Amino acid sequence: MKIAIIGAGAMGSRFGYMLQHSGNDVFLVDTWKEHVDTINKNGLLVEENSKLNSIKIPAFLPEEVVEIPELIILFTKSMGLKPMLKSINKIIGKNTQVLCLLNGLGHSETISEFVDIKNIFMGVTLWTSELICPGHVKLTGSGNLEIQNLDPTMGATAKKICQTLNDANLNAIYSKNVVLSIWKKACINGALNSTCTILDCNIEEFGQLKNSKKIITKIIQEFSQIASKYNISLNIDEIVKNVEQTYDPNEAGEHFPSMHQDLIQNHRLTEIDYINGYISKKGKEFDIPTPYNNLLTILVHSKEELLIK
Amino acid sequence: MKIAIIGAGAMGSRFGYMLQHSGNDVFLVDTWKEHVDTINKNGLLVEENSKLNSIKIPAFLPEEVVEIPELIILFTKSMGLKPMLKSINKIIGKNTQVLCLLNGLGHSETISEFVDIKNIFMGVTLWTSELICPGHVKLTGSGNLEIQNLDPTMGATAKKICQTLNDANLNAIYSKNVVLSIWKKACINGALNSTCTILDCNIEEFGQLKNSKKIITKIIQEFSQIASKYNISLNIDEIVKNVEQTYDPNEAGEHFPSMHQDLIQNHRLTEIDYINGYISKKGKEFDIPTPYNNLLTILVHSKEELLIK
Repeated sequence: MKIAIIGAGAMGSRFGYMLQHSGNDVFLVDTWKEHVDTINKNGLLVEENSKLNSIKIPAFLPEEVVEIPELIILFTKSMGLKPMLKSINKIIGKNTQVLCLLNGLGHSETISEFVDIKNIFMGVTLWTSELICPGHVKLTGSGNLEIQNLDPTMGATAKKICQTLNDANLNAIYSKNVVLSIWKKACINGALNSTCTILDCNIEEFGQLKNSKKIITKIIQEFSQIASKYNISLNIDEIVKNVEQTYDPNEAGEHFPSMHQDLIQNHRLTEIDYINGYISKKGKEFDIPTPYNNLLTILVHSKEELLIK
Repeated sequence: MKIAIIGAGAMGSRFGYMLQHSGNDVFLVDTWKEHVDTINKNGLLVEENSKLNSIKIPAFLPEEVVEIPELIILFTKSMGLKPMLKSINKIIGKNTQVLCLLNGLGHSETISEFVDIKNIFMGVTLWTSELICPGHVKLTGSGNLEIQNLDPTMGATAKKICQTLNDANLNAIYSKNVVLSIWKKACINGALNSTCTILDCNIEEFGQLKNSKKIITKIIQEFSQIASKYNISLNIDEIVKNVEQTYDPNEAGEHFPSMHQDLIQNHRLTEIDYINGYISKKGKEFDIPTPYNNLLTILVHSKEELLIK
């Protein structure tokens, strides 16, 4: 199967490598020229169980791509999705299936501006990966993903995509309610990313704070109120427990959330507008008060202004 | 006049020095033993216009004081007020006048547990000062203060206290509504202290943020709703303008608010519970939503937990 990985960062590179290894015809697309050039020159360096392999896999800048693939897997940063779709619009064929595996909320709305709804498949993944330097990715741990068709008539196609992913050992499950799973993951990110970023602490330290339960409960309550406008019913107590499980140092406790890595450690813009900022925006649209997500969004944007000159 | 300065930090030391200089019989009381011992050994070192003078002025730990003064001026940190009043209860005579010049809200309620309301005088001051090290204070700029009696029949006494302060060049004005002035100052502190602390920026940098007006307006709106429960009418637009005036580098712009100095620079507990935290507490009591002040209070307390081990 001809597959384009759009956004070949840590996760995109992992998926591209695993899908090519299982026999697909894969190419990578990314906006980062140094990364693209390095992959084309040296191959994609894949570090797995302390072994380093160089994998021949073509990589392109968005403006260079010409071939229409059968499957596109989207793995850009949230704020890069729309500009990327504009750039690669020419390779989205009439029958190209588009699978979105981005974190955050609101992406299906963006994709549907460029892709027929019957070709849109939404997913959520727990795989992890690390981009060490341009052209060099480190595979960490194991994971899985669930995917589902947006158009109710396209279930069979979604299941075929699952099969392709499973042939590459990506542990894909056909989901009956992927939107619920996407919201649950967004809640966990919404509870931990902005708070650990603003407080400059890791997940375990956050969990030990006297008021951590109070903060995350308020955040998730506001997520839940917006979700209900989309007929999605979130179990607040269950999601609070899911967040609290990550405090364990054997789970994610010792890690800093990706937003902390982006902003505090690397002075890069964050995905806040697609997590807490999405709740804040929809709160205004629906006239539902979301003050905790409003203030956290403003504080993270303010910290972006202060740290990124 | 025999005057006790209770809380002899930067401001207490300044007032003590100026009041003794104009002929009063002053003593200082503070919980910081090294500071008290240094003053008793070397005198209070007062730095003014680059000149350093050693001023003989007796200093005591709270448990050592025995003499009942005619006037007590309270200058503790907010969270030190109640324990201090317990410690010095024995020197609060039947006719001892007590003037409170602390920042923050809620202090008159605390003082009235220890002092007859007719002897309580509330004030607010714009004087500034800096404590360089134990026993050494630097006088900066000029200032003024306004004071008023809590008991409506005690106006004449308040004016006499003004006279004593003015004899020491402290520019005291008898106020017809000191509670309004205290709230206005608390709003300014509430808008700048917690935000600059959480964002780790100075006042000018905060003022340049895209969302600074949005944040301070929300904070001050909540202050105003609580104030109205005490029949205090705050002009939100006017106070927003007052806050914005401080952004000017010729005003306070280059400075970090005191809460930033306490917590971020010196890893000391903050006065948050008497500024944003007071609004948060009263919001719960009156069942008025104050989410911005709630979250800022929680974030500052969380930062205290992270930084003060």
